[in-house]
Amino acid sequence: MCQGFMAAGIAAGIKKNGRKDLGLIYSTVPASVAAVFTQNKVQAAPVLLDKERVKFGKCQAIIANSGNANCCTGEQGMADAIEMSRLAASELKIPEELVCTASTGVIGQSLPVEKIAAAIPELVRLLSGDGLSEFTRSIMTTDTVPKMISRKGKIDGREFGVLGIAKGAGMICPDMATMLCFVCSDIAADPSLLQPMLTASVERSFNRITIDGDTSTNDTVLLLANGMSGVSLEKEASRNKFQETLDEIMIGLAKMVVKDGEGATKLVEITVKGAASDEDAEKIARTVANSNLFKTALFGEDANWGRILAAAGRAGAALEPDSVDIFFGNIQMVKNGRWCGADAEQKATQVLKTSEFGIVIDLKLGTGKSICWTCDFSIDYVKINADYRS
Amino acid sequence: MCQGFMAAGIAAGIKKNGRKDLGLIYSTVPASVAAVFTQNKVQAAPVLLDKERVKFGKCQAIIANSGNANCCTGEQGMADAIEMSRLAASELKIPEELVCTASTGVIGQSLPVEKIAAAIPELVRLLSGDGLSEFTRSIMTTDTVPKMISRKGKIDGREFGVLGIAKGAGMICPDMATMLCFVCSDIAADPSLLQPMLTASVERSFNRITIDGDTSTNDTVLLLANGMSGVSLEKEASRNKFQETLDEIMIGLAKMVVKDGEGATKLVEITVKGAASDEDAEKIARTVANSNLFKTALFGEDANWGRILAAAGRAGAALEPDSVDIFFGNIQMVKNGRWCGADAEQKATQVLKTSEFGIVIDLKLGTGKSICWTCDFSIDYVKINADYRS
Repeated sequence: MCQGFMAAGIAAGIKKNGRKDLGLIYSTVPASVAAVFTQNKVQAAPVLLDKERVKFGKCQAIIANSGNANCCTGEQGMADAIEMSRLAASELKIPEELVCTASTGVIGQSLPVEKIAAAIPELVRLLSGDGLSEFTRSIMTTDTVPKMISRKGKIDGREFGVLGIAKGAGMICPDMATMLCFVCSDIAADPSLLQPMLTASVERSFNRITIDGDTSTNDTVLLLANGMSGVSLEKEASRNKFQETLDEIMIGLAKMVVKDGEGATKLVEITVKGAASDEDAEKIARTVANSNLFKTALFGEDANWGRILAAAGRAGAALEPDSVDIFFGNIQMVKNGRWCGADAEQKATQVLKTSEFGIVIDLKLGTGKSICWTCDFSIDYVKINADYRS
Repeated sequence: MCQGFMAAGIAAGIKKNGRKDLGLIYSTVPASVAAVFTQNKVQAAPVLLDKERVKFGKCQAIIANSGNANCCTGEQGMADAIEMSRLAASELKIPEELVCTASTGVIGQSLPVEKIAAAIPELVRLLSGDGLSEFTRSIMTTDTVPKMISRKGKIDGREFGVLGIAKGAGMICPDMATMLCFVCSDIAADPSLLQPMLTASVERSFNRITIDGDTSTNDTVLLLANGMSGVSLEKEASRNKFQETLDEIMIGLAKMVVKDGEGATKLVEITVKGAASDEDAEKIARTVANSNLFKTALFGEDANWGRILAAAGRAGAALEPDSVDIFFGNIQMVKNGRWCGADAEQKATQVLKTSEFGIVIDLKLGTGKSICWTCDFSIDYVKINADYRS
């Protein structure tokens, strides 16, 4: 899909269940790299390592594992992350500094580096242009579906490609990048040009989703651009075109992550408008998106608008209860803070029975607006997370 | 228990299931009143009404209903709250301004005032010194047990009593008073003296608990002191004695509320110490106490310390991952950010199998400290809240 990228994924024995757990992305030439990492003060060893490596602006390979987060593992954890990158670099015959690492899984257990060492020769042998779906599977934890989106675009009549991969089903909350997201492109661009484009895109996509309000320690988004399409981003129109394509992929992946949230049965887009400011709109959108009472009502397909208003009221934003309107899909359920009646409720309940819909909260105070995506909170979320380590 | 207080509770038909849903507390003489209300910007009609009434410093009766929150009900809701107080005042033959109201239940539905009107004569007839347990039952919603604590104290050799009642099992989160809490005392004190004592006590009790992170629209704490014991609070030592008794009751009730949280199976005290400041300690304690991943792990009896560290890391407080210690009960599970091994984990898992225990997070950065109480997050929480309105 993107010229010059290859990938593979295999089972190295890190996961107890024998599923794929080690993946590799490789660019045949060094690529420009841009990155966004977790804002959590507790950061995993691969995050700390990558933060140093991407400073040089180049990356040629990403080695990633699932089943173990290599987080809260101290100096040994950092030594393990470095060793993991060294082993991959050695087999690929590229400099170690051009390898980024990523880990996802249980926090606080040592990485089984010997299993990774044993698996790397086979992993490199399997590298192919069709290997991305195997890579995508190798980074899944509680994800139930692989998440990959690719787009072709044209700039000045020449074709370029962008391909994004994400994983993440728990410890997902706005104000961060998602658990793991890798974007490959054959566009030609300096890292200094790519970074603000990636940051802007993360702000519009992964920073607008929540599954459970818990920000992960391992969140990593890496964008690699290897230039092999020969398409450059010198002109502003070209940059706009690429940003558009990047946003489309990142927002698409972010929504896939929410839709596949642990135990989730619904993907819900929350739009807050008419707020005193964009910041106020965002506070309310995020508070509603993270309210357990709202999310359990979604699971129960109950159009419980009172819980939406109650969550909005505690968000720390300007709000006049008597001027709020709330819509479920196209159905107005609340007008000026008051219930629109049984007929509206019946129609709204039908909206709630679908698997994807929007909720609009109009404060009618100003022009501030914000959107975020959330999922419902189901019995399966509790089951998954009560038993996660066992 | 407290001189001069009577109470009653009956089924007025507000709840669909025929359980008690209307209660009355009455002091034979007007009492000094202090109050704390929800910080939510969306506030129920009875909250708005009481806020006005307690300004005069006197209260003689509280009429409360469950099954309907009388919130987001507009002008009609306020008219209904006033009518509810007028009906009670008329039957009690006291001024309407001396009656406070409280409501708890579903948001957004009109209060069935005609049912309340029909039930009030019988409710007043049933008033008795033994009626408090009936009152307590009448304000329960998803609570599974009534919550009442009483204490006798002595000041200058003279006896006084304090009795507290609380309800609340969902929409419970720090930074507020609990859903409903009523404290009666026969102490003699001016409202201006009582208010700071109540505010301090709320800060140490109800503002330190969370069940689901959702702040209610109806939270109300009312303290009535009718002076009938003849014991005054003129001396500082007397005030300290009363504050101590009040705190004991308020903290006890707050913990009962958490223990009876919707679906809760465990009461957990979270202590954060060694923080850079008390504010930092509080941020971390509250973030951990509200983390769904931590709370589902509690339900699964999994000593998943990684989730505690991950939540602490996103709390917005100063934190050095490599200096954090974590204890489950007396068992040290994490030392300097690292796992203490399988033996410690096995012992910690035994602690988690009990129904009440403490978790200590020591940041070793300074002297800041904070405590809060939380419960686990169970499958039943989701079931209760998915089906709440049906």
